[in-house]
Amino acid sequence: MNNLLNNISNPSDLRKLNTDQLPQLAKELRAFIIDIVAAKEGHLGASLGVIELTIALHYLFNTPNDLLVWDVGHQAYGHKILTGRKDIFHTNRQFGGIAGFPSRKESEFDAFGVGHSSTSISAALGMALASNLKGHAEKHHIAVIGDASIASGMAFEALNHAGVSDANLLIILNDNAIGIDPSVGALKEYLTKVKTDKRLAAQNNIVKALNFDYSGPIDGHDLTKIVSELERLKSVKGPKFLHVITTKGKGLQQAEEDQVTYHAPGKFNKTSGERIKKEESLYTKYQDVFGKTIVELAKQNENIVGITPAMLTGSSLKLMLQEFPKRTFDVGIAEQHAVTLAAGMATQGLIPFCNIYSTFLQRAYDQVIHDVALQNLPVIFCLDRAGLVGEDGATHHGVFDLAYLRCIPNLIIFAPRNEIELRNILYTAQLRLKNPIAIRYPRGKGKIIDWEKPFQKIEIGKGICLKEGGGIAILSVGTVADTVSEAIISSVKRDELAHYDMRFIKPLDENLLHQIFKKHQTIITIEDGTIKGGFGSSILEFASKFNYKNNIKILGIPDEFVEHGSSEKLQKEVGLDAESLVNYFNLRS
Amino acid sequence: MNNLLNNISNPSDLRKLNTDQLPQLAKELRAFIIDIVAAKEGHLGASLGVIELTIALHYLFNTPNDLLVWDVGHQAYGHKILTGRKDIFHTNRQFGGIAGFPSRKESEFDAFGVGHSSTSISAALGMALASNLKGHAEKHHIAVIGDASIASGMAFEALNHAGVSDANLLIILNDNAIGIDPSVGALKEYLTKVKTDKRLAAQNNIVKALNFDYSGPIDGHDLTKIVSELERLKSVKGPKFLHVITTKGKGLQQAEEDQVTYHAPGKFNKTSGERIKKEESLYTKYQDVFGKTIVELAKQNENIVGITPAMLTGSSLKLMLQEFPKRTFDVGIAEQHAVTLAAGMATQGLIPFCNIYSTFLQRAYDQVIHDVALQNLPVIFCLDRAGLVGEDGATHHGVFDLAYLRCIPNLIIFAPRNEIELRNILYTAQLRLKNPIAIRYPRGKGKIIDWEKPFQKIEIGKGICLKEGGGIAILSVGTVADTVSEAIISSVKRDELAHYDMRFIKPLDENLLHQIFKKHQTIITIEDGTIKGGFGSSILEFASKFNYKNNIKILGIPDEFVEHGSSEKLQKEVGLDAESLVNYFNLRS
Repeated sequence: MNNLLNNISNPSDLRKLNTDQLPQLAKELRAFIIDIVAAKEGHLGASLGVIELTIALHYLFNTPNDLLVWDVGHQAYGHKILTGRKDIFHTNRQFGGIAGFPSRKESEFDAFGVGHSSTSISAALGMALASNLKGHAEKHHIAVIGDASIASGMAFEALNHAGVSDANLLIILNDNAIGIDPSVGALKEYLTKVKTDKRLAAQNNIVKALNFDYSGPIDGHDLTKIVSELERLKSVKGPKFLHVITTKGKGLQQAEEDQVTYHAPGKFNKTSGERIKKEESLYTKYQDVFGKTIVELAKQNENIVGITPAMLTGSSLKLMLQEFPKRTFDVGIAEQHAVTLAAGMATQGLIPFCNIYSTFLQRAYDQVIHDVALQNLPVIFCLDRAGLVGEDGATHHGVFDLAYLRCIPNLIIFAPRNEIELRNILYTAQLRLKNPIAIRYPRGKGKIIDWEKPFQKIEIGKGICLKEGGGIAILSVGTVADTVSEAIISSVKRDELAHYDMRFIKPLDENLLHQIFKKHQTIITIEDGTIKGGFGSSILEFASKFNYKNNIKILGIPDEFVEHGSSEKLQKEVGLDAESLVNYFNLRS
Repeated sequence: MNNLLNNISNPSDLRKLNTDQLPQLAKELRAFIIDIVAAKEGHLGASLGVIELTIALHYLFNTPNDLLVWDVGHQAYGHKILTGRKDIFHTNRQFGGIAGFPSRKESEFDAFGVGHSSTSISAALGMALASNLKGHAEKHHIAVIGDASIASGMAFEALNHAGVSDANLLIILNDNAIGIDPSVGALKEYLTKVKTDKRLAAQNNIVKALNFDYSGPIDGHDLTKIVSELERLKSVKGPKFLHVITTKGKGLQQAEEDQVTYHAPGKFNKTSGERIKKEESLYTKYQDVFGKTIVELAKQNENIVGITPAMLTGSSLKLMLQEFPKRTFDVGIAEQHAVTLAAGMATQGLIPFCNIYSTFLQRAYDQVIHDVALQNLPVIFCLDRAGLVGEDGATHHGVFDLAYLRCIPNLIIFAPRNEIELRNILYTAQLRLKNPIAIRYPRGKGKIIDWEKPFQKIEIGKGICLKEGGGIAILSVGTVADTVSEAIISSVKRDELAHYDMRFIKPLDENLLHQIFKKHQTIITIEDGTIKGGFGSSILEFASKFNYKNNIKILGIPDEFVEHGSSEKLQKEVGLDAESLVNYFNLRS
């Protein structure tokens, strides 16, 4: 089988095919992706939905000379396979293997590295304006963007600029009505109307109002139509916009029917599509500790509301949505809006839990400073996926949060050591703090089976001693405490090593720190965040302020972008696994 | 005169007037603002443009119970005067006086603190959704937003959410076709069409497409029309949108004719409107050092392009626009797009200078990390208005940049000591660095008359010694060096005090630091940025890494939001004026 795909090493091979061979290639490409993702895991639905589009784009355009930018990049597996990475596609998302997202380092066909959403129009427009200045009038610049991504503010900013430019830019809206969770918002409703009644495409057309040459909607699985429409658009100069309707998960029945699950289904049977259940775990994901706890709290406190920018499932805020649909807000991929919305709600006495992945809060940094912290509004930020996130890699690691949040006045920052601490800080936060608080916790599961204990209030700014010791004190924040404990037990210095969970990155427990600095000559700080400006630096600042001369060593994520791979591999890579810590401890004095 | 205004202490007094008295009140209010701003300085044009709207809103709605949010807040002088601050309005923007922007601390009528643009819809929507949950069906929630602000991504995110909500939200588009500089973009062109041909308002109506009850455009200076339309809208439930056309600077001829200058004209003759020229200064603003230098460089290097998010005048990129209109891009209030656009351009070999105020780069933090630094694209960020900015106050101080940028891998961070250093780093940056660079410099003028010297290349990561000394080394970055030098001369310890300009916050000059730490027992770091995680912390990290036990003291902006006032007052307030530094130095050993 796979006759056609076998002979395609890169798009120039593809271009030798006749148009009527393309549907067969689509079939083969789909099977190839299903085959590998079934066994190796990864993002499935998005790539299956754009198989025809991917083929048509590389067939008609002269990539990599023509520049093709995939928004987010979940959907770029077909693109990777057709552009020289077929034989290494089985290494997808593995340590040392190819990345799950397009990456400039990896291939000249990956015109722009992606991972976070809604960057593609800006990037492609920049390229197109550059081509104009450089006199490359023949070059095409294409952004493929989903309907969830285009609703994000940054994409609108880019449309607003592109519409008045003379850029040779083609924006393809890959409209499947779903991001990771189903799309939301007024734009989505508008697009739905356009799909169901094409006359509407002519009326109140947002894209036309923004000065684009709009065409569509067309069936994104009909290769004949896509090829002919793209062929036509090749000769249209200036900014143009093609609206393509696709089905996420196309070609695998379960993936079409359960699009949320099959966004990234884990291992599955490639023929039946059935998911291969992982061994039941006794442990709970941190996101579910959040989700279950907020439901429990919301039952007791009617002022609690939950907000997520398009991460209902990933954050487990879905659990709250099921119980309290009116108090749960999925605002779409709109981190900026999510934060200021929360601030507005807080002014009226609501208690907003705003759940945003650590890496995505970077999108709302100004809003945290300007709308929340400056007005000292008690918004509760729940930062999921903090620390190293594993296979999603460099774009998604949540390693900067402690540094970029620590410099913000008024903000409390807490990192729970385990599920019980997370549960209790969520409880504490909704008792009406005087300040906003950021609670950051990792991807994945905890290690405590029976974490659903009665709530206990946590005293703000209070750290604790986990283990007494001698000359060396280890100060950790967050779930890395567990690895530290393990390493201490395995160290030949175990009796010398004290271990403190400082819990609050801000405010620091200065009383406890004075005790620590007086008792222990050497202080080692450990965090799963960057060593530049993070928790460790705050301990150095404390020592400087009070003239302590102890030895202080800072362990954390080094000052470089960490690639993708399993959490275990990455922790070893940055020296935060138990074995590395044991070695480090053994050499200290 | 001022018969009506004299008797208005708050909106309940206003509501006692007859509708036909309102035009007279508008006249008086306008005169009152002109009178005070002419003498005391401040933002003029924006407030003059919304006098009628301001009166109508407080006349018809039950503020402060009904919640009114002004976007940005430049236009809120009339609002402040009508809501209890008439008698202290002359203290506007002064240290200890009222703020130039709405502020929750200041008045219950200021429903939400503003300063940065495009937050009003999110905030008001949050309030409206809170009212729904709390059963306050009668409450009105109003956001007044300009046409420049509504084109920013965050505003679109809020519209997209509001359009599918049942919020009792009224958005008023104050369309005057100008922000600080004239508005740009496809949305602006669309609005222009709507204004010139009202039939267009019915066709391709973006606002209607987003599910709003759209009305307008109406004349924003016709009180009868505004009052009757607002009256009608009071009874319309759900999200609604009123398009109002106003003239920035309305009522003062010069302000209408030269809207850019009269945004904040400085002192002027209240009758003639003529600006009162300040004494000619021999010195140059840092923004003009940037503007003139980039023009000079762009003449020599055709790959240079300039990008600004709506700060053509404020950044002096206008100078480049005049000479190289095709290579200069004002993208509107769109910091996120500006940064990723620059990244896209950099992939094609252009050399983008992306000029963004320090405080506004907070809006594009993720793009700096994810699109620029992660791909190590050599974008040149010029961060104007770094440090304390004076009268604009807490929302606008550029004091977090060193902390939030320092944790980003690959990024070079430089703070010029003076105009010549700024000029030379701009020159150096366009010689094609291997990394992105952030160059941060302050508001206001330098102190060198003859700064236009031949270009000299600056070695990346190289600090310099400004003065030899004894036991104490002062390490500064940026223009604070000048105050430090002054303080050293005035200090009784002057011979003991050495002074180094480290110049690069990242990468640190480790060779120089080793010399410093070996030679001087006490190190004092000084920066006009936050003491949490900034330059001083980087010196602590260096000492920790290499086991130095010197005394290290960190001076900078304390961990709190600094209010408004003259730069001199604020510097004293935070202890960074020469006198405070002298006192500090005198006590050191």
